[in-house]
Amino acid sequence: MGMNQFLQSLSDLETINRAPGYFKFEQHSVAAHSFKVAEVAQFLGDVEEQAGHTVNWRSLYEKALNHDYTERFIGDIKTPVKYATPELRKMLADVEESLTANFIHNEIPEQFQAAYARRLGEGKDDTLEGQILSVADKVDLLYESFGEIQKGNPEPVYTDIYRESLATILKFKQMACVQYFLRDVLPELLSADFSDRQKLEALTNTLLDQAED
Amino acid sequence: MGMNQFLQSLSDLETINRAPGYFKFEQHSVAAHSFKVAEVAQFLGDVEEQAGHTVNWRSLYEKALNHDYTERFIGDIKTPVKYATPELRKMLADVEESLTANFIHNEIPEQFQAAYARRLGEGKDDTLEGQILSVADKVDLLYESFGEIQKGNPEPVYTDIYRESLATILKFKQMACVQYFLRDVLPELLSADFSDRQKLEALTNTLLDQAED
Amino acid sequence: MGMNQFLQSLSDLETINRAPGYFKFEQHSVAAHSFKVAEVAQFLGDVEEQAGHTVNWRSLYEKALNHDYTERFIGDIKTPVKYATPELRKMLADVEESLTANFIHNEIPEQFQAAYARRLGEGKDDTLEGQILSVADKVDLLYESFGEIQKGNPEPVYTDIYRESLATILKFKQMACVQYFLRDVLPELLSADFSDRQKLEALTNTLLDQAED
Amino acid sequence: MGMNQFLQSLSDLETINRAPGYFKFEQHSVAAHSFKVAEVAQFLGDVEEQAGHTVNWRSLYEKALNHDYTERFIGDIKTPVKYATPELRKMLADVEESLTANFIHNEIPEQFQAAYARRLGEGKDDTLEGQILSVADKVDLLYESFGEIQKGNPEPVYTDIYRESLATILKFKQMACVQYFLRDVLPELLSADFSDRQKLEALTNTLLDQAED
Amino acid sequence: MGMNQFLQSLSDLETINRAPGYFKFEQHSVAAHSFKVAEVAQFLGDVEEQAGHTVNWRSLYEKALNHDYTERFIGDIKTPVKYATPELRKMLADVEESLTANFIHNEIPEQFQAAYARRLGEGKDDTLEGQILSVADKVDLLYESFGEIQKGNPEPVYTDIYRESLATILKFKQMACVQYFLRDVLPELLSADFSDRQKLEALTNTLLDQAED
Amino acid sequence: MGMNQFLQSLSDLETINRAPGYFKFEQHSVAAHSFKVAEVAQFLGDVEEQAGHTVNWRSLYEKALNHDYTERFIGDIKTPVKYATPELRKMLADVEESLTANFIHNEIPEQFQAAYARRLGEGKDDTLEGQILSVADKVDLLYESFGEIQKGNPEPVYTDIYRESLATILKFKQMACVQYFLRDVLPELLSADFSDRQKLEALTNTLLDQAED
Repeated sequence: MGMNQFLQSLSDLETINRAPGYFKFEQHSVAAHSFKVAEVAQFLGDVEEQAGHTVNWRSLYEKALNHDYTERFIGDIKTPVKYATPELRKMLADVEESLTANFIHNEIPEQFQAAYARRLGEGKDDTLEGQILSVADKVDLLYESFGEIQKGNPEPVYTDIYRESLATILKFKQMACVQYFLRDVLPELLSADFSDRQKLEALTNTLLDQAED
Repeated sequence: MGMNQFLQSLSDLETINRAPGYFKFEQHSVAAHSFKVAEVAQFLGDVEEQAGHTVNWRSLYEKALNHDYTERFIGDIKTPVKYATPELRKMLADVEESLTANFIHNEIPEQFQAAYARRLGEGKDDTLEGQILSVADKVDLLYESFGEIQKGNPEPVYTDIYRESLATILKFKQMACVQYFLRDVLPELLSADFSDRQKLEALTNTLLDQAED
Repeated sequence: MGMNQFLQSLSDLETINRAPGYFKFEQHSVAAHSFKVAEVAQFLGDVEEQAGHTVNWRSLYEKALNHDYTERFIGDIKTPVKYATPELRKMLADVEESLTANFIHNEIPEQFQAAYARRLGEGKDDTLEGQILSVADKVDLLYESFGEIQKGNPEPVYTDIYRESLATILKFKQMACVQYFLRDVLPELLSADFSDRQKLEALTNTLLDQAED
Repeated sequence: MGMNQFLQSLSDLETINRAPGYFKFEQHSVAAHSFKVAEVAQFLGDVEEQAGHTVNWRSLYEKALNHDYTERFIGDIKTPVKYATPELRKMLADVEESLTANFIHNEIPEQFQAAYARRLGEGKDDTLEGQILSVADKVDLLYESFGEIQKGNPEPVYTDIYRESLATILKFKQMACVQYFLRDVLPELLSADFSDRQKLEALTNTLLDQAED
Repeated sequence: MGMNQFLQSLSDLETINRAPGYFKFEQHSVAAHSFKVAEVAQFLGDVEEQAGHTVNWRSLYEKALNHDYTERFIGDIKTPVKYATPELRKMLADVEESLTANFIHNEIPEQFQAAYARRLGEGKDDTLEGQILSVADKVDLLYESFGEIQKGNPEPVYTDIYRESLATILKFKQMACVQYFLRDVLPELLSADFSDRQKLEALTNTLLDQAED
Repeated sequence: MGMNQFLQSLSDLETINRAPGYFKFEQHSVAAHSFKVAEVAQFLGDVEEQAGHTVNWRSLYEKALNHDYTERFIGDIKTPVKYATPELRKMLADVEESLTANFIHNEIPEQFQAAYARRLGEGKDDTLEGQILSVADKVDLLYESFGEIQKGNPEPVYTDIYRESLATILKFKQMACVQYFLRDVLPELLSADFSDRQKLEALTNTLLDQAED
């Protein structure tokens, strides 16, 4: 048993698609999503730092890069399951945690177990870095849903995902990086020319207004 | 709310891959797998009928066709999760059952709810048809793993899947259809020319011998 | 020679695409289409049964599941060939029939030949089950063309396919299941939000009006 | 009606796969195959010219480039249909010819109809260029089958295709380009390192010996 | 060393996509593009010939078929690099030329080296055939960009590509084939029903008007 | 101009394949490769840290995550171009550098330009983190080539890539992380069961022996 097992498993994440059955125009693998979230988190970290906050960059990169590795075990089932109750989501999280613990115990050499317990655990905690991860994860999901809407896919599930992503981002509206995103990035995204632009702008404004209150 | 929701969802099953991260040479969608299992069950039903047993064909087709629809909710996570304990598997089954109940209640018109509760419930019961489904599901999985082994994919996970499929089939070795499969179908499959043939024949014979005792 | 040949061939149907060169956004394999048609037929059968008609379920599932297996031999060339005359279509049907007879004679063990001659023969006969198959096959094609139109694909071929599917369904407008489909399913489908909605509703209403007469 | 229809249809040939259900490791579109056959024919033409024969290059390129356009109508069903009799193949060829004639009449402006009747007609005639096309078509098919065999795909269908391709090439063994191919190209192909090399060399030698007689 | 290396390399062109990262709805391989450009050039040559000009058909086919083979070495990086200056483009062209010379020296048998130096060199010279190639290459690119625009992809890069393609075609507006294309083909293309039709017609008319002057 | 442009461009890296035309069994996008290299670098950093060296984690993650972003401009042409001379490689590097500078100037807001000049510049410098990146990049390439060899792809290019990757890794053999990789990871990889195992072990041992001297 050694790290070869773990290194080879990275390639599996290239073949696991996010939200299988949902995205129609562009598939996103868990590996590619992890890359994008780390890139987004890096940018959000820049903003926080320029706003005078101290960023623990090691923690930020580590959280972003590893936050979805455990989808190898249980798949990407959490986001779009609209029939799940909070209790069911809690049960699924417990299952995932147990599978991860079993994996670390069986496949990771002892000298690295503590590091991977931290890396494969829940990264979205109350630290600045955990909050940036929460935002970055939803920024990428917002871009993914936008990619479908912009290309003319009218299935309402993408508007649902866009709304839910933005709503979650807005929960962190006191953060400098969220304010920058809302002021300097999102308007640029929405200024592109696509058929559902007006509807999406209206939805965005509604959410922003609600968040004001 | 009506059956349009259900009919449109069938197309999602075309884009959900079985065992994501595992199959490398040939991807199998849940829709295609369901088709193949129904075809295999139909053939196994022929054998049972010719052996003098009464087959409830409606039940057999219904079970085979619908047995994996619920993977829409929770994904195809049960087969290859080697880090799962029996308790975790039980928890996952409970989650799946609850999601299914929520789906039927929310999306299926009342006049069809009883039919879909039956169709989307556990089909692998103790009836002849339930047992044929158990065998047919594993026959297709055995063919899927064989497709990778035959094409020269040496990753041990396919041999594991082949072994586990055959072992499950052998639990039903008293059935006429399993005896036909072991005597007239499996040897033909293994007589093909491929590099790991000897190893697979040896593994097969070991399992068959153990099942004799 | 035995059933192994047939069972292995099922996997070929996973890699044969329907209407190659036509669908641009979503490819549909023959295997997945067969699954969907069987699911649609099952639902239409429910409606017929609730309307008081006796459904031979074995025959219905058998017809639906196997109706396109012979595309292995001659490909999916019949639907979109707009340059074909009736004579050419007849010739193609004859070729297909002969290829199927040769296949059954060469590849299916004698004890199953009668069953597969029935299964791989023309299923769209005048029985209730044959008529349900005719409708179910077009319902899935209608959904497939809708999937392209809804996603913004403006190539007129999809409107042609939608029109032709609906026109064929309307030939069976005296059936309870068609009446249910027209009254409770189709309006829900068309109520979705997509850019060509008005045009498709107008086309649908024109066809429905013509069928009234 | 004008040439726009024809020019847009070229893109359809990018999405029609050759021998659907057969190739497992590498899919080949009709467009890509047409490109490769034209490249092979160009090389074979070089050899013929260097051997002192006069090549009608316009005819050679025209034949090679256009020889499979009509697969748009009837699909790629001729090569691997092992259940077809000569009569059935003849019937299929007749159907294809009629569909092509209908297409030219309906879609090609009158001033170009003669050119496209020639281009979309049977190119494999008794001229030097027609013979080079016959060889080039099979050289590409031989490479396509080799691509599967070399990568370890043991399904016997590829050996069948390799054998049939080489046997057809050998029917033209009196041609300078075939002699060059057999002496200077094929041995280099077979000298590559792959697991079934010995078997393929033996098969090749057997066919070459038979052709000697 | 012999032609086997070259013939096997043709298959690589099936897996190299044009403008990677740009096309979202339809991927185009270099092999398929080469086929389409040769087909377009063939049609444009027809028009030139009917207009009384002498076409060197061998040269035309040869130029069109081989014009992008060298993308094997350097990839398809020239078209969409909007950050490139003329100096950088010149440097890239020099690199490509050197790689091609090295390839011909190392992989092509001496007796064919002159032919391939001509075929893999720059085809877009001042001859009639070189000019037809310049037009044909852009006609296919225009169709490729139209394929995205028509399907509702609003990313401005496709309008940019459409504009740049048409602008290049218009540089050859004195040619009979360009006049035919502008008068009889392009209006038919734009008359199709798609959401951005008005915008694309306006853009087209602006470019045509500018070219008048 | 703002960061939206950059964030949207991340999705392009999901559709740019590495070494187009080379990998046959598994395609690797630039996005997925960047994720994997960052994961490998993280693990190699663990080893260095446990060996008592100070790792600048921010720099290590930053280098690994961003090291191939510039492939957006010039494609992945450096690794496999066997016809390139050192001068050509130098010219290509200069082109890439200029394109990157143009991109940063045109697309990145001024307040972030310094950060992205550092991130998109050459990361493989003489620092510990630069050296870890050099190793991690080749470890992932070694795994990618192994993925093809293990699955039975006999094309010599993969052995070439494996050899070149290992040879580069061995240039850093004095590093603790390389020693761990050679002693505890590589043997585990090679102990898997695949047909070319002996050849690959021999090649590996030859390279290791040469590195000893």
